[in-house]
Amino acid sequence: MSLIVIGSVALDSVETPHGQREEILGGSASYFSTVASYFTKVKLVAVVGEDFPEEHVAFLKDRGVDLEGLRKSKGRTFRWKGRYGENLNEAQTLETQLNVLETFNPELPASYTDAPYVFLANIDPELQGKVLDQVKAPKFIACDTMNYWITGKPAALREILQRIDCLVVNDGEARQLSGETNITRAAKKIRAMGPKQVIIKRGEYGALVFGEETFAAPAFPLEEVKDPTGAGDSFAGGFMGYLASTGRNDHEAVRAAAVMGSVTASFAVEEFSLDRLKRLSRPDIDGRYEAFRRLVRF
Amino acid sequence: MSLIVIGSVALDSVETPHGQREEILGGSASYFSTVASYFTKVKLVAVVGEDFPEEHVAFLKDRGVDLEGLRKSKGRTFRWKGRYGENLNEAQTLETQLNVLETFNPELPASYTDAPYVFLANIDPELQGKVLDQVKAPKFIACDTMNYWITGKPAALREILQRIDCLVVNDGEARQLSGETNITRAAKKIRAMGPKQVIIKRGEYGALVFGEETFAAPAFPLEEVKDPTGAGDSFAGGFMGYLASTGRNDHEAVRAAAVMGSVTASFAVEEFSLDRLKRLSRPDIDGRYEAFRRLVRF
Repeated sequence: MSLIVIGSVALDSVETPHGQREEILGGSASYFSTVASYFTKVKLVAVVGEDFPEEHVAFLKDRGVDLEGLRKSKGRTFRWKGRYGENLNEAQTLETQLNVLETFNPELPASYTDAPYVFLANIDPELQGKVLDQVKAPKFIACDTMNYWITGKPAALREILQRIDCLVVNDGEARQLSGETNITRAAKKIRAMGPKQVIIKRGEYGALVFGEETFAAPAFPLEEVKDPTGAGDSFAGGFMGYLASTGRNDHEAVRAAAVMGSVTASFAVEEFSLDRLKRLSRPDIDGRYEAFRRLVRF
Repeated sequence: MSLIVIGSVALDSVETPHGQREEILGGSASYFSTVASYFTKVKLVAVVGEDFPEEHVAFLKDRGVDLEGLRKSKGRTFRWKGRYGENLNEAQTLETQLNVLETFNPELPASYTDAPYVFLANIDPELQGKVLDQVKAPKFIACDTMNYWITGKPAALREILQRIDCLVVNDGEARQLSGETNITRAAKKIRAMGPKQVIIKRGEYGALVFGEETFAAPAFPLEEVKDPTGAGDSFAGGFMGYLASTGRNDHEAVRAAAVMGSVTASFAVEEFSLDRLKRLSRPDIDGRYEAFRRLVRF
């Protein structure tokens, strides 16, 4: 089944202990849609500026991503600049230029409005709401957010939480949103705000799914993490892409989808930008999925 | 099969966000032997002072722990005082009084020397070596250590690493010992120093077993952690106790044993001191083991 994602398409400048890259393809929606395209038909809603390199558009088109909802606006593309130290779990943001994102008002093409699966990547919760207003009969809606919106637009975020099925956040965000240090209690409190499911991403420690049951998906133990940028969005892309491909949203399917999210996140961090994701294959993905089985089998 | 443990028996004073306790039963060997006693016959090697409360000795005897190797020396029992903040993963040591541990020279009773399973809890690697010298035909030796010995007695520790089958340390210790930030590479380097297996404990994130295969055991998501003291030793007690009860040391058994370690560690932190461990039952343990199966099933 098809899957809408709204989020950012960006040009990132990134520094990690493994090197430095300038103005490489980034943004939540780029990672998400590239990953999800290995599983299902993805419909992208995003905006870029006039300076956005044509090669990136061509790449997404090649991946079969529906770009009818990708608007090109006057001005410059959204830019993010960040640095990771030896502890690759946390980025230090050096610069954010919203540029064309500042005036973005997402309008869904008519062909998008009947998509059953929806992912609202990390943007202004008011924009997330506007997207939801335009989707006719969503079957499963998941959503990401960040500290900026938790403190800056708490009312709009609360409203979104009542309209979604699943919140996908990292542990720091879950703590901030709930006011609880303990992750299990934090998830309980967030579920009481609306979403039946909460997925808490913990970087190199994997993810926890809290729903009618609790599920722990480990992260894949990698010998080298070159660039953690986009790991969370790649998790979400694998999770939602796989779920949409099954047409299901029950807890069994959600467990498998969370493992798929861990699989795709593990590939994302092996190289800078989307470099590893660009040359993935289904055998690569399925092979690592089986490696996850061996990793947790007892 | 029987299991020797050498380690500390202590009186702890602990402060956590959930309360404060003075001079409660603590020490690596207390946690370890209590937990392991639910699985197999445990032979304790440790020293206490003249001030050590008789009730604790009576409790260990009740649990069936062999106390022939528990020496009572002139002087005061080893004491540790620590505090945990909201982040319960790390203790702040406020005071350490070695007392009778300072002159401890472990001599194994004759009835201990043919035990096939050996756990060297965190003490001076020279003492760990002296214990190993006295064991006739060990089948599986595991060992813990800490930053103090990694920097203070590197040569003695290196020698121990060549004599053991499995090192059980936390992530910080693994990084320090190997000089590697990445945990997977750290484990690889440590294995090159001797032990065929390295288990890396990561507090609320569970444990990773690196051996001929890699295994990830999650931690049990608890809504309340009252006192993390002894979690690592309780992990080791469940791990070694279960392994000794099977008489095996192959990777399949090690996987199940690591889950058992996570099970027993999850009980340990639910209350102060050994309070929860004192009133465990095999059905409690087996019930949570099955809960771990549900937690990771996909």
